[in-house]
Amino acid sequence: MHDLHEKGGRLRLRRQINMKKIINDPSCVVSEMLEGIAAVNPEVVYHPGFEVISRRRKSDKVGLVSGGGSGHEPSFAGYVGPGMLDAAVSGNVFASPSPERIVTAIKESDCGKGVLLLLMNYSGDVMNFEMARDIAECDGISVEIAVVKDDVSTEDDDYSAGRRGIAGTVLVHKVVGAKAEQGADLAAVAETARKAIANVRTMGMAMSSCILPAVGTPGFFLGENEIEIGMGIHGEPGIKRTEVMPARELAHTLLEKIFADRDYDGQEVAVMVNGLGATPLMELYILAREVNARLLEKDIRVHRYFVGEYMTSLEMSGASVSLMALDDELKALIDAPCDTMALKVGRSCL
Amino acid sequence: MHDLHEKGGRLRLRRQINMKKIINDPSCVVSEMLEGIAAVNPEVVYHPGFEVISRRRKSDKVGLVSGGGSGHEPSFAGYVGPGMLDAAVSGNVFASPSPERIVTAIKESDCGKGVLLLLMNYSGDVMNFEMARDIAECDGISVEIAVVKDDVSTEDDDYSAGRRGIAGTVLVHKVVGAKAEQGADLAAVAETARKAIANVRTMGMAMSSCILPAVGTPGFFLGENEIEIGMGIHGEPGIKRTEVMPARELAHTLLEKIFADRDYDGQEVAVMVNGLGATPLMELYILAREVNARLLEKDIRVHRYFVGEYMTSLEMSGASVSLMALDDELKALIDAPCDTMALKVGRSCL
Repeated sequence: MHDLHEKGGRLRLRRQINMKKIINDPSCVVSEMLEGIAAVNPEVVYHPGFEVISRRRKSDKVGLVSGGGSGHEPSFAGYVGPGMLDAAVSGNVFASPSPERIVTAIKESDCGKGVLLLLMNYSGDVMNFEMARDIAECDGISVEIAVVKDDVSTEDDDYSAGRRGIAGTVLVHKVVGAKAEQGADLAAVAETARKAIANVRTMGMAMSSCILPAVGTPGFFLGENEIEIGMGIHGEPGIKRTEVMPARELAHTLLEKIFADRDYDGQEVAVMVNGLGATPLMELYILAREVNARLLEKDIRVHRYFVGEYMTSLEMSGASVSLMALDDELKALIDAPCDTMALKVGRSCL
Repeated sequence: MHDLHEKGGRLRLRRQINMKKIINDPSCVVSEMLEGIAAVNPEVVYHPGFEVISRRRKSDKVGLVSGGGSGHEPSFAGYVGPGMLDAAVSGNVFASPSPERIVTAIKESDCGKGVLLLLMNYSGDVMNFEMARDIAECDGISVEIAVVKDDVSTEDDDYSAGRRGIAGTVLVHKVVGAKAEQGADLAAVAETARKAIANVRTMGMAMSSCILPAVGTPGFFLGENEIEIGMGIHGEPGIKRTEVMPARELAHTLLEKIFADRDYDGQEVAVMVNGLGATPLMELYILAREVNARLLEKDIRVHRYFVGEYMTSLEMSGASVSLMALDDELKALIDAPCDTMALKVGRSCL
């Protein structure tokens, strides 16, 4: 790649990097990012070519694999570690990983007790993860699949049959990772995954597009004073475009759409207020304040908040709100320790 | 404030919020953000009017207070908790907190063993923190001050006499917080602070401006293919404007400026790769990869990496790299557990 720069590739490079990204070559962003993750986190191993990040220290339990397109960092490689994932597999930016890559992640995660694949509901991902399951099963590994469909903004679209999976997926990773860590068998881990998926809903909004490194221009445009309610994390269409609104109104708009789909009144929940990449933390905390006020009004008790960037869309500006209803089992699992680069729960000790 | 919207303030609100921020009223962003932080983090308490966030559970040790202008989230309220700060005090966006506010933070943090004020070198902050120290000392509280000046990009400018303090400050918070947690007395805590400050250097770059909520327009403009090396976290001038460059060249540019100021060859260091707010994590990991490669070449051993958004400038796009040389004491302190909203170190347990 360095050769490319020197052998007359300079012009091409210039054109590509004037999108103002901290990258070398747009065609190498995924591998270089994963090399970076492995360089800074000694607890994980990078498998070049397969674009898999796995735990360095394996433990004797059901394996948990997630993945999908890149560009959603810290999802998913940032969640590899005790209490969450055993391996994360990456496709190119916003593109599904191949079955071959997924099989590598499965094999890295299997200790003989089987592997659960936790993925988001996009047609390409579902197809490739199912093919990988079939291949791994031929090799004698038990594999279950659980598909997260938390986005209440739409039903079918061009990208998924049924609802899309978005940030609520990270809450599912958290509880399912804890269940596997406790030594539950594959059937029990898969059952917890299905319960968590049934309990989680997310609604998002975007204020600006993002720029795919290999493309170099924004995927869509929003007007100077325009936002899109319900936009997907790859820029899929949402429900409506509207004017910028105060944080209070925005919180109500997102939550009402969730409440229209599932009743959370009087229940106990985990809440995620997620930034899409370019939204300042200041704004996420202000949004969290408004979400909290609205949940109080509805007598919805928040057991734990997660506020930050958990599932992003490169430098897209915007946010999402996720609710997961918690029964006693899920409450214990959401509180169980986890120790990953991007999410740590539990008191810190050495 | 809601009244304001209804009583004909609508037009004003519209004009203000078409900068696409998730806020209610630009004049309330700091208090609403801090309310949000206290709402989602049960371990801290918000002191309205004083814009102070302090620990809910106090411990019998030297108090540690930091603060400064808002807009640098998670700095500093995100670092209040065991192993780091006892209280953080906020001014308005990019504006120093008043002495009165700082005194409140000092009183919330003092358990009779005195308080260390850890601040960044901006003239307004230095003046106000020194005034607060004098007031608190009149009330019988022992107060020491340590000022971080890690930015190697400039010497004096309009904002500070001597070098500015930027992201390396968070590494200082980490080690000094651990020292205080171990029960060291005020003199020893201050001595560790001065050693940490002497050992830390930071160099940053910006790719775009940020928008102050009360202003509504960008503070400066960079060309479509232009970045500024050495820009400060409030948009203060840097060393030079240049074309976008590959991540590898950028890492070298930032590190060479640091190495020209302090020799780290053959030493052991903590490294922070910090995003300024709108830079995707993908790019921070790619930058970390290049930093890591360059440090290997120089035989600089990295004891621990911190990669993420630690000190931001609202939605500014850009990054900084910090190095802190570690002796045995600082190495133990950087590894000591800490448990704050924005930084957790140590294995998670319950």
